[in-house]
Amino acid sequence: MAAFAMGWSDVDGRPAGGEGGKSLRPTIAMLSAEAVGAPAESALPGAVAVELVHAFSLVHDDIIDNDERRRHREALWKAYGVGPALLAGDGLLALAVNRLAGHPEAAPYLAQALVGLVEGQMADMAFESRPWHGAGRVTVEEYTEMAAGKTGALLGASAATGVALGGAPELGDRMWSAGRDLGVAFQIVDDMLGIWGDPHVTGKPVYSDLMRDKKTLPVLAALEAGGPAARELSGILRAGVGDEHSARHAAELVEAAGGRSAARAAADLHLRRALDVIDACVPDAAELRALCDSLVNRVT
Amino acid sequence: MAAFAMGWSDVDGRPAGGEGGKSLRPTIAMLSAEAVGAPAESALPGAVAVELVHAFSLVHDDIIDNDERRRHREALWKAYGVGPALLAGDGLLALAVNRLAGHPEAAPYLAQALVGLVEGQMADMAFESRPWHGAGRVTVEEYTEMAAGKTGALLGASAATGVALGGAPELGDRMWSAGRDLGVAFQIVDDMLGIWGDPHVTGKPVYSDLMRDKKTLPVLAALEAGGPAARELSGILRAGVGDEHSARHAAELVEAAGGRSAARAAADLHLRRALDVIDACVPDAAELRALCDSLVNRVT
Repeated sequence: MAAFAMGWSDVDGRPAGGEGGKSLRPTIAMLSAEAVGAPAESALPGAVAVELVHAFSLVHDDIIDNDERRRHREALWKAYGVGPALLAGDGLLALAVNRLAGHPEAAPYLAQALVGLVEGQMADMAFESRPWHGAGRVTVEEYTEMAAGKTGALLGASAATGVALGGAPELGDRMWSAGRDLGVAFQIVDDMLGIWGDPHVTGKPVYSDLMRDKKTLPVLAALEAGGPAARELSGILRAGVGDEHSARHAAELVEAAGGRSAARAAADLHLRRALDVIDACVPDAAELRALCDSLVNRVT
Repeated sequence: MAAFAMGWSDVDGRPAGGEGGKSLRPTIAMLSAEAVGAPAESALPGAVAVELVHAFSLVHDDIIDNDERRRHREALWKAYGVGPALLAGDGLLALAVNRLAGHPEAAPYLAQALVGLVEGQMADMAFESRPWHGAGRVTVEEYTEMAAGKTGALLGASAATGVALGGAPELGDRMWSAGRDLGVAFQIVDDMLGIWGDPHVTGKPVYSDLMRDKKTLPVLAALEAGGPAARELSGILRAGVGDEHSARHAAELVEAAGGRSAARAAADLHLRRALDVIDACVPDAAELRALCDSLVNRVT
């Protein structure tokens, strides 16, 4: 089941040549080690651990969100059942923690990332049942904190374990914060792709965030901006986005109210913050910089 | 949700005076620290971590086993939904790992326990769909390995983190193995209580293990013993234990075939092994010894 979750085998355990993940997090860990002058391999325990945690979080997310597909295959729970998949997810997490057990300079970043990841996911889930308006509405500030946990914590751990294992633990905390900012930028871009991206490229059903009442940044920013488009958008959201037609109209209003450009600006801001820290910590990390940049500039 | 899972509050978040757990694992951690001459409080990070992992495992177990009740209340998933409960379990685990992040002398035992715990639970789950007979049957040896993981790993981590945090990390590995043996004994006694215990005391539905095809030690030992009672038992198990009447008859046959006394002997053997190690490591640990003894001598 772990091999299936990692994309290495099919449901019967035969080797699969299929599409695995992008290995983004291990790449960040290994580039971070190289950025402090160490061989990429010195970051391997961290690289393995963050990829295992990423796999764990996808397995559990699909159960939580009842998503039946993942990377153009069945989700793990769909293929093996909820109980076994839940436990396999726990196993991936246990292996991750165990992988860094002998590395006290790096393990605390993983532990901190686990807490941040769960806090962010809890907040994201709680946001879905909170209103778009009034006293209980979700603010852009709350969104940013959620994304820094849900998406940023593990990117922070990737960068921080990378430099720590590469022999520069004194840079760990700053690289952690760079990773968190990168995560916020990455999440905002994901939100934008969920509204204006090509579903064939993103692999997500079109407008699913809007239909689920997900509190994504472009919509939150549009509502905070106010004006006639925001007010019309408000009314649609209050009634609930029930079909693709109404979702498309909502997406147009988000853009008209300035939500798309505000989201783009916020993503750029957080990317800039991350790159400033990276430039200060590891001035010659061209590959790491380019990777960060490419994550946020997937969409215009 | 975490407070509910720990027994501290009711489903609306009000403080609950209800029955929490026995705090067995933190007690072992703190007695182990005292046994090496340290204050009980020195083991607190370990004590907190093992109790959080225990809570995590109960939350996820109830989802996996579809058990609706826990400690005379609703299971967490029944009260809050599967998704939120799954994530709350992940959160308890994250907090546990984070609690020991600054304690490299103790954290590896927790990491190792997580792997052992999941491996044991996976084996336990897999055993349910394996036959009682023939080539694929579950052996007593496999059972022992499963129990050493499922129940023993966290007891091992309790004892090992206790001595390590108490200033005697050189005793950690041996106390870990003592905890594993204690766990095997504890699990065997649990199996016995599931067959011959009073459901009002155990809180478990009567004969639920037999009806679920759980591979418990008394039954495995009875079948391995052979003889007429074992052969009759075989037939019942092959057909499936469908009701309480047939379960009661199966229980009588397990006892007639010697499964009850074999289980008692196996529990005593593993307790003895655990106590021998404890006596060698920490000769004056009267309270810890007494606690171990009481866990295994809950039933005669």
